[in-house]
Amino acid sequence: QESIDQFVLTLSLHQNLANLQPIQIEYQPYYVYILYIYILYFIPAQLVWRTLSPAAERLRHILGEDDSTPTPTIFTEMDTLQQEGGELEWKESARWVKFEEKVEEGGERWSKPHVSTLTLHSLFELRTCLQTGSILLDLEGYSLPQIIVEQQIADGLIPPDLKEKIIFVLLRKHRHQTKKPIHRSLADMGKSSNAASASGIHRSTEDLRSRQSSSLGRLRESHKHTHLKNKFMKKIPRDAEASNVLIGEVDFLDKPFVSFVRLAQATTLGGLTEVPVPTRLAELFTNPTGYGYLIAGVDEFLDEVIVLPPGEWDPKIRIEPPKKVPSAETRKSVLNLNELGQVNGLAGGAAGGEDEELPAPHELGEELKFTGRIGGGLWLDIKRKIPWYCSDIYDGFHIQSISAVLFIYLGCITNAITFGGLLGDATDNYQGVMESFLGTALAGSVFCLFGGQPLIILSSTGPILIFEKLLYEFSKNNDVDYMELRLWIGLHSCLQCFLLVFSDASYIIKYMTRFTEEGFSSLISFIFISDAIKKMVGAFKYYPINRGFKPDYITAYKCECIAPDQAPALGLNASAPLADDNMTLLFNLTDLDWSQLSKKECVKYGGMLVGNSCKYVPDLALMSFILFFGTYSMTVSLKKFKFSRYFPTKLRTLISDFAIIISILVFCGLDCLLALDTPKLHVPTELKPTRSDRGWLVMPFGKNPWWWYLASFVPALLVTILIFMDQQISAVIVNRKENKLKKGCGYHLDLFWVGVLMAVCSFVGMPWYVAATVISIAHIDSLKMESESSAPGEQPQFLGVREQRLTGTLVFVLTGLSVFLAPILQYIPMPVLYGVFLYMGVASLSGIQFWERIKLYLMPPKHQPDFSFLRHVPMRRVHLFTLVQIVCLAVLWILKSTFLAIIFPVMILGLMVVRKLLDLMFSQHDLAWLDDILPDKDKKKKEDEKKKKKDKKAPEPESDEEVRKCTIWQVWICLS
Amino acid sequence: QESIDQFVLTLSLHQNLANLQPIQIEYQPYYVYILYIYILYFIPAQLVWRTLSPAAERLRHILGEDDSTPTPTIFTEMDTLQQEGGELEWKESARWVKFEEKVEEGGERWSKPHVSTLTLHSLFELRTCLQTGSILLDLEGYSLPQIIVEQQIADGLIPPDLKEKIIFVLLRKHRHQTKKPIHRSLADMGKSSNAASASGIHRSTEDLRSRQSSSLGRLRESHKHTHLKNKFMKKIPRDAEASNVLIGEVDFLDKPFVSFVRLAQATTLGGLTEVPVPTRLAELFTNPTGYGYLIAGVDEFLDEVIVLPPGEWDPKIRIEPPKKVPSAETRKSVLNLNELGQVNGLAGGAAGGEDEELPAPHELGEELKFTGRIGGGLWLDIKRKIPWYCSDIYDGFHIQSISAVLFIYLGCITNAITFGGLLGDATDNYQGVMESFLGTALAGSVFCLFGGQPLIILSSTGPILIFEKLLYEFSKNNDVDYMELRLWIGLHSCLQCFLLVFSDASYIIKYMTRFTEEGFSSLISFIFISDAIKKMVGAFKYYPINRGFKPDYITAYKCECIAPDQAPALGLNASAPLADDNMTLLFNLTDLDWSQLSKKECVKYGGMLVGNSCKYVPDLALMSFILFFGTYSMTVSLKKFKFSRYFPTKLRTLISDFAIIISILVFCGLDCLLALDTPKLHVPTELKPTRSDRGWLVMPFGKNPWWWYLASFVPALLVTILIFMDQQISAVIVNRKENKLKKGCGYHLDLFWVGVLMAVCSFVGMPWYVAATVISIAHIDSLKMESESSAPGEQPQFLGVREQRLTGTLVFVLTGLSVFLAPILQYIPMPVLYGVFLYMGVASLSGIQFWERIKLYLMPPKHQPDFSFLRHVPMRRVHLFTLVQIVCLAVLWILKSTFLAIIFPVMILGLMVVRKLLDLMFSQHDLAWLDDILPDKDKKKKEDEKKKKKDKKAPEPESDEEVRKCTIWQVWICLS
Repeated sequence: QESIDQFVLTLSLHQNLANLQPIQIEYQPYYVYILYIYILYFIPAQLVWRTLSPAAERLRHILGEDDSTPTPTIFTEMDTLQQEGGELEWKESARWVKFEEKVEEGGERWSKPHVSTLTLHSLFELRTCLQTGSILLDLEGYSLPQIIVEQQIADGLIPPDLKEKIIFVLLRKHRHQTKKPIHRSLADMGKSSNAASASGIHRSTEDLRSRQSSSLGRLRESHKHTHLKNKFMKKIPRDAEASNVLIGEVDFLDKPFVSFVRLAQATTLGGLTEVPVPTRLAELFTNPTGYGYLIAGVDEFLDEVIVLPPGEWDPKIRIEPPKKVPSAETRKSVLNLNELGQVNGLAGGAAGGEDEELPAPHELGEELKFTGRIGGGLWLDIKRKIPWYCSDIYDGFHIQSISAVLFIYLGCITNAITFGGLLGDATDNYQGVMESFLGTALAGSVFCLFGGQPLIILSSTGPILIFEKLLYEFSKNNDVDYMELRLWIGLHSCLQCFLLVFSDASYIIKYMTRFTEEGFSSLISFIFISDAIKKMVGAFKYYPINRGFKPDYITAYKCECIAPDQAPALGLNASAPLADDNMTLLFNLTDLDWSQLSKKECVKYGGMLVGNSCKYVPDLALMSFILFFGTYSMTVSLKKFKFSRYFPTKLRTLISDFAIIISILVFCGLDCLLALDTPKLHVPTELKPTRSDRGWLVMPFGKNPWWWYLASFVPALLVTILIFMDQQISAVIVNRKENKLKKGCGYHLDLFWVGVLMAVCSFVGMPWYVAATVISIAHIDSLKMESESSAPGEQPQFLGVREQRLTGTLVFVLTGLSVFLAPILQYIPMPVLYGVFLYMGVASLSGIQFWERIKLYLMPPKHQPDFSFLRHVPMRRVHLFTLVQIVCLAVLWILKSTFLAIIFPVMILGLMVVRKLLDLMFSQHDLAWLDDILPDKDKKKKEDEKKKKKDKKAPEPESDEEVRKCTIWQVWICLS
Repeated sequence: QESIDQFVLTLSLHQNLANLQPIQIEYQPYYVYILYIYILYFIPAQLVWRTLSPAAERLRHILGEDDSTPTPTIFTEMDTLQQEGGELEWKESARWVKFEEKVEEGGERWSKPHVSTLTLHSLFELRTCLQTGSILLDLEGYSLPQIIVEQQIADGLIPPDLKEKIIFVLLRKHRHQTKKPIHRSLADMGKSSNAASASGIHRSTEDLRSRQSSSLGRLRESHKHTHLKNKFMKKIPRDAEASNVLIGEVDFLDKPFVSFVRLAQATTLGGLTEVPVPTRLAELFTNPTGYGYLIAGVDEFLDEVIVLPPGEWDPKIRIEPPKKVPSAETRKSVLNLNELGQVNGLAGGAAGGEDEELPAPHELGEELKFTGRIGGGLWLDIKRKIPWYCSDIYDGFHIQSISAVLFIYLGCITNAITFGGLLGDATDNYQGVMESFLGTALAGSVFCLFGGQPLIILSSTGPILIFEKLLYEFSKNNDVDYMELRLWIGLHSCLQCFLLVFSDASYIIKYMTRFTEEGFSSLISFIFISDAIKKMVGAFKYYPINRGFKPDYITAYKCECIAPDQAPALGLNASAPLADDNMTLLFNLTDLDWSQLSKKECVKYGGMLVGNSCKYVPDLALMSFILFFGTYSMTVSLKKFKFSRYFPTKLRTLISDFAIIISILVFCGLDCLLALDTPKLHVPTELKPTRSDRGWLVMPFGKNPWWWYLASFVPALLVTILIFMDQQISAVIVNRKENKLKKGCGYHLDLFWVGVLMAVCSFVGMPWYVAATVISIAHIDSLKMESESSAPGEQPQFLGVREQRLTGTLVFVLTGLSVFLAPILQYIPMPVLYGVFLYMGVASLSGIQFWERIKLYLMPPKHQPDFSFLRHVPMRRVHLFTLVQIVCLAVLWILKSTFLAIIFPVMILGLMVVRKLLDLMFSQHDLAWLDDILPDKDKKKKEDEKKKKKDKKAPEPESDEEVRKCTIWQVWICLS
């Protein structure tokens, strides 16, 4: 099967006909070239040929329509004939795996992958070559040069006396472009024959062949070895086939010698290609009736070709590969539509610069169908999630998970401490930091283990905090037992949740469009950002800077503690030193050495702090700012580092994945180095309730009158709405189509567990938990997967999110264990964590279209990015839509800052009403691009449509239905 | 001349044949379109046609070669026929000024300018149209629709009964795409006729025309008004001509109606085009013999067309315009070379992504020619500069100058203070800050007013400082009068400079290649950066942070001043308060209230500082860091802001130009706000020598023995070398080709003035001055000009530097006046200025190729930018070359840090020797790409070449001469 002369030079029309660019060499007027192309594999026919152009039709006709084998990726290598040290050899000069890479003139370096461009002339020349050259199909991979040359002689294309010379040239060594240039020769003829070859060709090919076969075995061994180390191999898909193009220039020919050859048997050939890509037999078609199809193939290619006008383009520029290449079918449909006269509409009709995907209407509702059966949705959720359960565990074993766990863990405990502290203040420590930690751990781990969407992170949220505060104040004023009342509210709320679950109530979420979603998530992001900044500003208040400080007058700065009874006597004269005898007197009186007391002790014992440095704290405010801002900006820079030019992709991805952890470590290190007393993360170290007069369990009966057990139904209703909205909107945001989640979601199941956890938390007197939008988004962001192997120059594709239950569960287990981790955690300064919070807020904003649209206000039209909606909706409509959103957000922000924050979830319902009203302000076409279309609209439209069909005649080119169809169509093009 | 029916629809083959893209509409199977193109202007023939392709040759033959009128820019507008509110109208749907802008489907918005792409089909269709449609040349702009339609009828292309209908369609309103859509109609027929037009066409064209002419006057008035406000007009060059393309679809035609029309008379037409572009008569050729040339034109276009393969490209992507479009000639020469078989070499032969220009050898030497006459170079310098003198003043009046003056002024005074302070320390205040200020002002302003290159900024430099230090030490140890000795050295040095000037010695600078230049300027940049950082680190030493500070124990921190005789008695017990009676005793003894003394006073009077806060200064170190780093990063961000998407270009350019000033102001504001005692800029406020025992003038005789006057020749020689090298290398860097200076330079003149100023400064006892590389580069950077008006999408071109004497002079006048500006300057914190220094150092590094090559070490090959040298020189040679430079730099750095710094300029000579040795290590080809070729090499090569020509036969394809020719050739391509 395998023989020395298996030069396999292939050519694929569909994937890289552009490879034929080198053919333009043929214009060379002085020499005549050999173009020697064995066609291994030709015109894959898996494409559904549409009636497009005459050429395509002809091609389809020739190929038949019954072929369905997928086309393998073609690795193409172009070798040119060169004189190296007086010896002829074939030197690799370009290669293609989807995109073109050239060997730079200076050699020893591959160019950047780029889109191959070619001149029309080359194409026409190729067409001529195909018409006039010899084409040999389905050959045995054996003695090829001989067969080809003989065929050419038989066709009268070359005179017989050149046979030996051509064969000699074809059998020269192949030198490939690798890191260390490797000389490989199938002919491997030794130095004696090299000397001969320099002066002329004397040896017979038989002689050559015998030598070659003996050396082949050795050669192949060494190749295997080299190839294993060849990193480039990773870029080529497994089922790839190789294709070789040889181009050379010799002076003994007076017209071109062109051959296209396809082997019947696909074989791995030794040193011909750079990488050991096996070649399969192409069984697609056995039509031997001429080569018409080749011409038709070229014509078909010409039909689809894109032309850059010379006056607007510099041919020397290498075009960067696009992010996404449309499939052949899409290209054809574009052409189709072009022919239907929609040129302007469609040439500008789909997203160009970005690959944003507009969710088609209804898509969301898949898991939110109203089943009509009791608990039907819950049952479907369970049925959907069960098959994934095993993979939910083992999918978590990945290095990325470590980063995700550490990052989310730090976010969670910071949150737990912050909310715990606030809750403690609000409820006189009935629920404090300890309860917050244990509750987070309990609720989070249960939810991650059994919930419908384990990527959601549960946390305390603002509205719940406000509710608890009001409830505690109410119980204190009315002499009601807070914990017991709270337990009953929890129980009622749990039952109400069950009611919502079993009645499939979550289906109403599908009426929530991008408008509502974006309003909610931007608000939450803004709250995160503003909280982080507020905390930072707080540091400047908590550690006031001594603004007028003069280093030279350091001797004048002091702060002393003065006994309360002595202060008036001294008349607050801070600079007067205390007399010794007075001191003694005081000691006798109070047994306290006032001057030895610390600031806190002094205040505690009623002393007075006197001095001009008492109310100032040096360095800490500025240090906190440096830590805060440094952590934030370092995280942002490291995240961006992924797109820099430095270091290999893997390292960059690793750095980007661990950006937050690296920043935290760096700034913790800086903090340790300066050893300043910045505020640190302190977690409780003992397992006991914050308030000593309460136990772990809350008893349901005994403390309040019986009617409270029923009356708590009313506040529970508020809590239920609050929890339902908060939970489900966050779930919708997490389940966004952009995140490409594959394992499905479970809105009903999620709510079920939130209800159960409510009841449990109420019994043990811990806070209530619900999905936290920003941390959940951060969780998803830290688990994003991108394709690893792709053709050189191809952008890595976003594949989806590492959906699993391991990271979430680990985060909460760690949270529970934090009590024991206190010695480590105490090194983390709070400003660093606030910096992380700022980053989370900003990062979760960045994915929101609303935010992109706000930025448009500041951009002159010519600088605006090429968003698809901008191609379809007039600028001022876009601005108006954005303005409505801004106003809504401002109103929500103002309401949130008042006591009305408790009806926050109801305000989300308000957003949905506003969205409904927008139907009156904007056309359905505009809304389809800027938002989604409300589902009920759909039904109406179908009815309208039916009506219209009855009085068929009325020509309404801009009817809603048609427009919607059109946009879906365009969306489909975007998607595919 | 002007008539209602002057629809001028033009088409230019050369500049935007791509405009013909809309012709692809013709595939539309249901209707038949009208393609109605008046050809105004066709095939400019100023191009030197080379024998390229048969098509081009044919075209040249047809057009003749004697035409030399330049082609005006063509503004093309495409209107499509649309139904708007039941009425037909021509709606603008795309326009081209070099690049394409589409009206987005949603309307009311122009797309981003992009490269127009088109399908081959459209091109072929156009070709067919040109062959079959009617072509009317040099028509009077009068009754055109009638003539066209009649011509078509005459040609039998349309039946006569359609005449009225077609004319009606052609006369519809034109609606243009502007901010507020303006409806314009040449036909302006009123509502009654509109109603008629909806149902059918009944009116006669004569009737129509009479109405139209009456309304035209009114219309044109209003157009002028609107057009004046039209900003787009600015984008179109003055001599532009308009070209209109009309495309429509009507149901009464059954085959396409195509016309190409060119008007004999170019006229401004009312509402047809968006902007009032006048059209000139095209007198280029009067060849009436058929339309062959049209077909040849299309073929010629096809020859040069670039094709993107469908499988690698998404046709929906809009290609961003390239930075630079090659001229037609360049394109042709590329094609030419392609045909000569240099495909690989040239396709990758020129800079793609960047427009870096490799200076061709010899280029530098233009002003450095060895004249052979005494003072010949100086005389040429003066002759070269005199004609520019007036423009050197008035070119300075520009808003950019304000920013440049402020920026460079701040840099200069910071430098003057720093060096003044150091000089003061080194010379016991014989030369202090005051002398430094006045000297800078004097030398700088004289140089800027009379020097050869007024963009150069004079300043004190490190080597001079070290020389002064050594000289002062020497004179003190040997009882020689320092000032007198220095005066004589200055005088000798001045004479030596004159000698160098009059002997044209500066010509040796041309042996300095990129290698030497880069070594020197990177070293200076690194020194700038390291100094800035050192100063910053110094702040942490000068203001130590109290690292263990506990805010709670503020009561325990104090610092007290204790009388010297009392300290031992107290045993340094800091916490023990002083007893009142002891205090009284001390007061009696010394009459000093020790506790009221400041830190400095305490130390001064021999007191002792006791306490745990004495050696710490709060906040200042961290604040300094924030100011330093903040200023630096804000400057960098604002400079980058120019390339952001926000705000109009003008505003962005303004922000970027004023980046440094804005940053300085912001951080001075922040400093004021926090009112901390950060170190401020303090300039002397009184005009008197720093040392009171010296006057302003230094007397040459009397203090030292006479033989010192002669002996000072020897140290003067060192100073001369030092000044010569420092001055001229900086001048070479400033005069780099990349800066596109147009007014020439004056190396000899520069050196002359430096010599004169040496003598003057020696007489008044002020420091010596020489060109400062980094500040000069900053000066140039702040004066860069870019083209303002360019076609939409075209990148602004770097035009050169605002070469003038005003900014420099102003900077130094301000420096002189700084004594009076002290009250304002004292608000500027030093860390802010160090931040500016850091920025200057980093910015001057960024333009250096060496630095780019260092970065390559960290980049995997596929991410490396597309530098031209990377296309030609193997990676490891590039790395080796960079490594040599790094080693040289490291050696220089080490030497500079020792006392050898004084022979620093000699080390630059060493660099030139190393460069010479590199000729042995690298091939001339590699050096030509990485560096420049040494001029003497050239001569040798010419001789070699001659020898070779004698024994002509030896084929050496890689001979140096050939390679050099090739690179120059390629460089030329890059340049043009």
